[in-house]
Amino acid sequence: MEQININIKHAIDLVGREAYEAVKPEVEAAKRHLVTGDAAGNDFLGWVDLPENLDPTIVGRIQADVARLAPKSKLFVVIGIGGSYLGARMVIEALQSEFASMVRGAHPYVVYAGHTLSEDYYSQLFALLDREDYSVVVISKSGTTTEPAVAFRLVKAHLENKYGRDEAASRIIAVTDAHRGALHEIGVQEGYPMYVIPDNVGGRFSVLTPVGLLPIAMAGYDIDRLLEGARDARRICLSSVPFDDNPALVYAAIRNVLYRGGKKIELMVSALPSLRYFAEWWKQLYGESEGKQGKGLMPHSISITTDLHSMGQYVQDGERLMMETMLLVKKPASHVAVPHDERNLDGINYLDGKSLTSINDCATMGTLLAHKDGGVPVVTIEVERIDEYTLGQLIYFFEFACGVSGYTLGVNPFDQPGVEAYKKNMFHLLGKPGF
Amino acid sequence: MEQININIKHAIDLVGREAYEAVKPEVEAAKRHLVTGDAAGNDFLGWVDLPENLDPTIVGRIQADVARLAPKSKLFVVIGIGGSYLGARMVIEALQSEFASMVRGAHPYVVYAGHTLSEDYYSQLFALLDREDYSVVVISKSGTTTEPAVAFRLVKAHLENKYGRDEAASRIIAVTDAHRGALHEIGVQEGYPMYVIPDNVGGRFSVLTPVGLLPIAMAGYDIDRLLEGARDARRICLSSVPFDDNPALVYAAIRNVLYRGGKKIELMVSALPSLRYFAEWWKQLYGESEGKQGKGLMPHSISITTDLHSMGQYVQDGERLMMETMLLVKKPASHVAVPHDERNLDGINYLDGKSLTSINDCATMGTLLAHKDGGVPVVTIEVERIDEYTLGQLIYFFEFACGVSGYTLGVNPFDQPGVEAYKKNMFHLLGKPGF
Repeated sequence: MEQININIKHAIDLVGREAYEAVKPEVEAAKRHLVTGDAAGNDFLGWVDLPENLDPTIVGRIQADVARLAPKSKLFVVIGIGGSYLGARMVIEALQSEFASMVRGAHPYVVYAGHTLSEDYYSQLFALLDREDYSVVVISKSGTTTEPAVAFRLVKAHLENKYGRDEAASRIIAVTDAHRGALHEIGVQEGYPMYVIPDNVGGRFSVLTPVGLLPIAMAGYDIDRLLEGARDARRICLSSVPFDDNPALVYAAIRNVLYRGGKKIELMVSALPSLRYFAEWWKQLYGESEGKQGKGLMPHSISITTDLHSMGQYVQDGERLMMETMLLVKKPASHVAVPHDERNLDGINYLDGKSLTSINDCATMGTLLAHKDGGVPVVTIEVERIDEYTLGQLIYFFEFACGVSGYTLGVNPFDQPGVEAYKKNMFHLLGKPGF
Repeated sequence: MEQININIKHAIDLVGREAYEAVKPEVEAAKRHLVTGDAAGNDFLGWVDLPENLDPTIVGRIQADVARLAPKSKLFVVIGIGGSYLGARMVIEALQSEFASMVRGAHPYVVYAGHTLSEDYYSQLFALLDREDYSVVVISKSGTTTEPAVAFRLVKAHLENKYGRDEAASRIIAVTDAHRGALHEIGVQEGYPMYVIPDNVGGRFSVLTPVGLLPIAMAGYDIDRLLEGARDARRICLSSVPFDDNPALVYAAIRNVLYRGGKKIELMVSALPSLRYFAEWWKQLYGESEGKQGKGLMPHSISITTDLHSMGQYVQDGERLMMETMLLVKKPASHVAVPHDERNLDGINYLDGKSLTSINDCATMGTLLAHKDGGVPVVTIEVERIDEYTLGQLIYFFEFACGVSGYTLGVNPFDQPGVEAYKKNMFHLLGKPGF
């Protein structure tokens, strides 16, 4: 199969090859930390071998739950926040139609809860759930995180009211700790099917556990192919090929070099609106892994050509603090070409018969060159198409590069101490006992 | 009616009151430029008086077109890019259900085109348009911008194929130049109802022209109230009340002071997912107005508490380059409270009976205090609720403050020279005659 292709030539010109060569030993040392587990955060390295080590019975269990619930569920509610929903949502939104809520397939349409406390959001969600048959997965290591705990209480009450307690229990799956915690205890008492979040895999690295696999399979996508793509990418990331043949090392190196050279913001750029949640997943992965001790590239994203007509002016001519990572996709899944118009009043007959992708590719390359000319270094990461296999490749590639990059930056890429700060204040303001 | 309430106390502590007081004369001079039209960009100040000067027959014409098309249209396709769709989308997404595509009301559900060149997007859109009755508005000053021109050719062909040429023509509205341009010419030849984009209103300031008003009314929202909110905000923005009683001057001043003090990124923060496109509209308004000559705060956004579990770590502990503008909304439109659970395994019985908004408010305040403690200055902008009136207020407030802020920054806030750069490269790559 085609591998991920990284190209740094439009970035390295702006920092010089010497700086890039000089950082390589640090990046190789960072890779060794991941492999040997001899650095801070080494109790959260379970994701490194996950594509190979995943208990093979899990996929079968998931497929059995899909076969049981999909036929009686028009909707599937995924309750989770942060890493408990972003991985699944990223894969599902990349693969489904932009209009999937209105053009339904054989599998349930996935909706999300537990990622917000907006009162109107839940009111609107229940107006929908009143009308359509649904099932639920609740994803939480502890079961006490405020947002998903509140959402699960609400959804569970709605489901029991709609179907009665027994049928409701048969429509709920829990993904949680193997042995302890509130959600584990609720699941045991209620008899929910349960899946395990491994202790050594943090939320933002958990898409290839049941956290991501169950919702992705419920939406109708092939999780075997997803894991296969991840396995193939893992082989390359862990291999001892020359530095420049390992795309994860190249990406970790160039972004650290650009950061040291004064770039403070990294824009994830894609020409496909369906990759919107890919950028959101990536933002958590990199922002939460590296944004500590006053350091790190700030993750940001734009969609082209859409946002060239909103953020494009800033990227071209604003403060010179940005680097860009462009995610390029060679082939679309469908074919649409520009129709001919005899009168040509709009002046675009020179595009007659061209596929939209060929035009979009010229827009993307035109953007790359314009931004480079404007002083924005651009790294490109290219895959053949968007499907389960390539998404699996991208997941593992970006995870591995993130671990390498974080150690190169000099932080522990696997903790997130800053996430507690708002919670402490919130608990105090809410009058939670003990705060 | 309640006015917009701005509070800078959680920002000013981090820069000192002196710096804020010192910038006031510059901000007042910038305001005078807007009022007298004596500075660069003065041929694009039509938006300043728009809420008062809008031809009153336009609202009536729009309502007549809505009455004609809504009953026979399940969907309404808005074709436009940048300022030609972001204002309408911002208002519509703020007001409609998050699940409006599945829980339809009496008015058409709005879908978007012409803002992307993704081949799969159009293939998926036409699979939807095959199934449901629809009408179209195409919004473009020139009619030759590549993205909407390509989309309009495709949609027009689909519509003519579905309904025949006459009925198709009756389902298309054009919003374009009053006298010239490709779309004007097509509209005249085909006999489309046409609305005018005024010459002195740039795209990002055009939501209160038919560019925004027509789609908003088609979606079922009250454009009279929207204009009323804008008129009330205009009165305050233009008044000679003391500096600190004019929220637009306060906002323009504090963000310029923070920028001069080293802040390079402004995060628009909201606790309501429905304000996602409010942030997108704001990003264009500020990014395109200020991001030039190597200057300007880079617009970015997060949704809380959603993104506190993804970007929260970075905001709390990453590079100290950010300021935040929090858009606070006092009252929700609906009521949902936390249900009681006898067993309390999730430990949230201390929230029993509390409305979700009261919890969300504590999360928001907890976030504000945590970020401030982490060195991120926070400006809050508060409205009573989200409805057409308050959105009208917010539109005018942010537009006026943007003009003032851009002049204070020392740029022409009304041009966008950098947007052409990618287009020139793209035309060359596409082999457009003359490039």
